[in-house]
Amino acid sequence: MQADEFGVRPGEVMADLPETFDAGLHFIGRLRTPWTKRKDCPKNGLQTQEICTVEVDPAYATGLGNVTGCTHLILLYWMEQATRGLLVQQPRHAAGPRGTFSLRSPARPNPIALSVVELLGREGDTLQVRGLDCLDGTPLLDIKPYYASTDSRPEAQVNRAGADQ
Amino acid sequence: MQADEFGVRPGEVMADLPETFDAGLHFIGRLRTPWTKRKDCPKNGLQTQEICTVEVDPAYATGLGNVTGCTHLILLYWMEQATRGLLVQQPRHAAGPRGTFSLRSPARPNPIALSVVELLGREGDTLQVRGLDCLDGTPLLDIKPYYASTDSRPEAQVNRAGADQ
Repeated sequence: MQADEFGVRPGEVMADLPETFDAGLHFIGRLRTPWTKRKDCPKNGLQTQEICTVEVDPAYATGLGNVTGCTHLILLYWMEQATRGLLVQQPRHAAGPRGTFSLRSPARPNPIALSVVELLGREGDTLQVRGLDCLDGTPLLDIKPYYASTDSRPEAQVNRAGADQ
Repeated sequence: MQADEFGVRPGEVMADLPETFDAGLHFIGRLRTPWTKRKDCPKNGLQTQEICTVEVDPAYATGLGNVTGCTHLILLYWMEQATRGLLVQQPRHAAGPRGTFSLRSPARPNPIALSVVELLGREGDTLQVRGLDCLDGTPLLDIKPYYASTDSRPEAQVNRAGADQ
């Protein structure tokens, strides 16, 4: 684990992570946002109107062809500052500790974050988007088209008080 | 690159991938589906009613607490058989080659796939879900709660004919 400002709080549980990895990732770019400290980040991407920039590394920018045909994109990115491997955690505003897989917290065995963003435009190797909430300089892993047919579930519900089994 | 049945077709472009990785992944479980050959997989998770199983490795299963409070989940998984690094590709049913980041194809620099699934139940370290389309045994990377507020965009559109810049 990485010792950082998030740390491990009472009631939290860490995974005993393996010493080796099963697969490797290439960072394909960086996300440029107005936020340089965790405390300044919006709680989620809908709580801000800031326009952010997706900088795709020139080695991968050929993959951006046809992307402007999408009104919305899914971005996957790497939360490199998160405490990795936290399995039960105590969110600041929750009544008690919760399983990591019931949370969108960046602290998880594979700290891959996901945001649905609105695509506003493209200039060369960069995209302008709305809907990000992460730190400036966050490594980019993937860009996908958002399909309402498969990705939009307006009926979905999360019961935060939820059954704990 | 990995030589496999998907290969590289005329008009397609491969990235010159770095020899080292920037970050590593732990496989946290496996997806159990009825499909053992790529040609048998449904085109997407809405084209099947099959109930599939998410097997979480016991080392990570503590993280499942509270997950049954969610009606829908986002699963991230690793398309280990995909041709990695394809930047421009020719989908079987498209008119011409397209940028990878405008496609949901498994072939991409970081072959992380994403499905929104309906959570039907939990038994110990396994979840029953509907909405998967992948091969049996696919490695699991992450489970996240699906929030309609941030993840559902019914107005999103993809223009497949789309502008190519």
